[in-house]
Amino acid sequence: MKNEKSIAQLEVELSELKHKYMAKDISPLAPKNGFPKLPIIKGIRLASVAANIKYADRDDVMLMECAAGSSIAGVFTRSSTRSASVLDCQNKLVNRSDKTAAAIIVNSGNSNAFTGSHGEVSVQNICASISNEMNIPLNSIFSASTGVIGEKLPHEKIINKIEELNSKLSEHSLESAARAIMTTDTFPKGAYSSFSINGSNVNISGFAKGSGMIAPDMATMLVYIMTDVSIKRNILQNILTKLNEKTFNCITVDSDTSTSDSLMVIATGQSKTETIVDEFSDEALKFTEELNSVMLSLAKQVVRDGEGATKFLEVEVRGAVSDISAKTVALAIANSPLIKTAVAGEDPNWGRVVMGVGKSGEPADRDKISIWFGNILVAEQGWVASSYREDLGQNYMKNQELKIIVDLAIGDGSATVWTCDLTHQYIAINADYRS
Amino acid sequence: MKNEKSIAQLEVELSELKHKYMAKDISPLAPKNGFPKLPIIKGIRLASVAANIKYADRDDVMLMECAAGSSIAGVFTRSSTRSASVLDCQNKLVNRSDKTAAAIIVNSGNSNAFTGSHGEVSVQNICASISNEMNIPLNSIFSASTGVIGEKLPHEKIINKIEELNSKLSEHSLESAARAIMTTDTFPKGAYSSFSINGSNVNISGFAKGSGMIAPDMATMLVYIMTDVSIKRNILQNILTKLNEKTFNCITVDSDTSTSDSLMVIATGQSKTETIVDEFSDEALKFTEELNSVMLSLAKQVVRDGEGATKFLEVEVRGAVSDISAKTVALAIANSPLIKTAVAGEDPNWGRVVMGVGKSGEPADRDKISIWFGNILVAEQGWVASSYREDLGQNYMKNQELKIIVDLAIGDGSATVWTCDLTHQYIAINADYRS
Repeated sequence: MKNEKSIAQLEVELSELKHKYMAKDISPLAPKNGFPKLPIIKGIRLASVAANIKYADRDDVMLMECAAGSSIAGVFTRSSTRSASVLDCQNKLVNRSDKTAAAIIVNSGNSNAFTGSHGEVSVQNICASISNEMNIPLNSIFSASTGVIGEKLPHEKIINKIEELNSKLSEHSLESAARAIMTTDTFPKGAYSSFSINGSNVNISGFAKGSGMIAPDMATMLVYIMTDVSIKRNILQNILTKLNEKTFNCITVDSDTSTSDSLMVIATGQSKTETIVDEFSDEALKFTEELNSVMLSLAKQVVRDGEGATKFLEVEVRGAVSDISAKTVALAIANSPLIKTAVAGEDPNWGRVVMGVGKSGEPADRDKISIWFGNILVAEQGWVASSYREDLGQNYMKNQELKIIVDLAIGDGSATVWTCDLTHQYIAINADYRS
Repeated sequence: MKNEKSIAQLEVELSELKHKYMAKDISPLAPKNGFPKLPIIKGIRLASVAANIKYADRDDVMLMECAAGSSIAGVFTRSSTRSASVLDCQNKLVNRSDKTAAAIIVNSGNSNAFTGSHGEVSVQNICASISNEMNIPLNSIFSASTGVIGEKLPHEKIINKIEELNSKLSEHSLESAARAIMTTDTFPKGAYSSFSINGSNVNISGFAKGSGMIAPDMATMLVYIMTDVSIKRNILQNILTKLNEKTFNCITVDSDTSTSDSLMVIATGQSKTETIVDEFSDEALKFTEELNSVMLSLAKQVVRDGEGATKFLEVEVRGAVSDISAKTVALAIANSPLIKTAVAGEDPNWGRVVMGVGKSGEPADRDKISIWFGNILVAEQGWVASSYREDLGQNYMKNQELKIIVDLAIGDGSATVWTCDLTHQYIAINADYRS
């Protein structure tokens, strides 16, 4: 009897330890309702297949067809070691004609980054093969690869599947495409908006992948957003670039920047709206607002799937000398391992937040800083607030969604960024198993 | 019998899990021979006592007396939220006269940082009390505090011990002083050099504390280096500032910058050497070389005691467009959580090193980069080296002391920095227990 009890106790202890330290199957921060039902975008068809590049028993390549007349805009990683696909997309985007159809091919499991001349050869062969199969000019074929760095991409595996992909294209395959581009993601990320412009219905559907190596500029992600709005390409690019600064460039998981980040927006123009030609027209502003909500939702979902994340943290900095200064301070806080581990440990350690402000290198007056955890004023006038009690902070930190607000009180600059905590599971994912 | 075996198995499994995930009592990278026997420095006397500021049953305050005639130089954190002690030391260093004696008081357990006006009051009261007790002018009394941020320093506990400290001052108390300033350190850090200048014996003895919140500029550390050399204060300051850039400003544990970092060098002038008045004289260069070796040893010991460290990593970057650019690249690699977890996991993941180069924002040509792990050429010409085999990398990564070399091959700039891995124990120290 004594032994039996000991075994039970030991097993409980083991199970608790494993739960605490080991990687979870799905992020506890994943949206409760699962992948949203994305509206079909007229002019967009997708397909996915299993090409067995690295993962077995799952789709790992997706193909998107964009109808002739689509405006396409994009933003990409600024890494000096960016991949062949990224360089190729950047070249083509500025040169292609909107009059022709376009296609986007994406594989997961291999990033085709730092693969020397092999990288360019793979991109050229895949794009040429699609151009041939789909009868689309080569300079309108875009590609992306995500996964392990430095291994030669077995591009023939992708090329062998192009005919099948082309034959399976469907307006309805948004979710399977979103799943095909996942790597260490624990859930697929989707967001949409349906609204009207001058009485005509407009839809935006987007999906994203990303989990580790997430930091501006940009997060390690691939994002594809499709809309049936009609808009001039340069206007779309301007809007995208601007929104990107306050969405995807405001998230960080681990401060590491990827070699493959790509975000593309395709506007097929197949809604009944007039073509947007002025960035500041009412129609453009409405579209911008809705696109922003889709981008922000996707960006936050990437953070929610941050490797090992158990807490979602919003960091708002106000009263800085400029918006840029505020963003630098906010990112210094959001990237601090000491703050991220304090969040993981539910420790209201506002001293580490002070440290984060100090290390940012931005102007700050120690005795003017105020700090809130949610609605709780924690520190002001260079010290702990007289109204603050440690149990208030401790209770607040038990929440899954947290907000830290810092008011520097020396200017009008502000910024908000999003991140997650740093946990044993992050270490388990990145150190315990070989990638 | 079956049950007994199960219990044994379970206990082994539990023990292994705990060993893997929980904080160690002493860093596995600690020097094998323990704290060195530091030479006495004529003109320096020290004492330590237990003032019970935070820790029970250990000394937590140390007092150092520096004889009249000592030149004192210092470098400090550049954090905009630096502590009252740091601000006070910075003011006094430029104004004091070398003709009088000086004293340095340091406590552990409370950093007296972000304590508003209380911080200044504590520093003033402590310094005034020492000035009175030791009959030393107030502007030659320096202080430092290390430990938790944002809690009011119970300075009366320190003041109550000043008489006792003064009565216990001894040339022989170097090690106990080094121990009194420890916080999360798992071992005290000491280094020395004994050499001769023009036939006269010269000694340098130094000690340091620091473990977490370690990043340039500077590491979260307190460092005190004493020497009997005779040297003009401004020359000492110039040498110190220069050496600091290549020693303590080249180490990082977690990229976080402290509010309390202080490094002071005291030259008592009680050796028989002539006073050094020229920074580039043979005597000055010899002293500089020996001071550099002491500083480098202490800086590396701080990394060796990095929170949760199990591997010591040197990162050398060559062929950059400038030394500063090389240092930025080296720190981007050394601060990358993905690289630090790969090191922890003994994963020869050179793709993450490529990512680190890319994210640094510094000039690099993807196809010119070469990467070595120790003597093993891993990548060249934009891809894996033809001679590289994965098992070579895997075997190399099993070492406790590792070196990553990156040659950008576009210039003559170079830099070397030191860091440690990012492990479950780091998370355990910073998230699992309340600080």
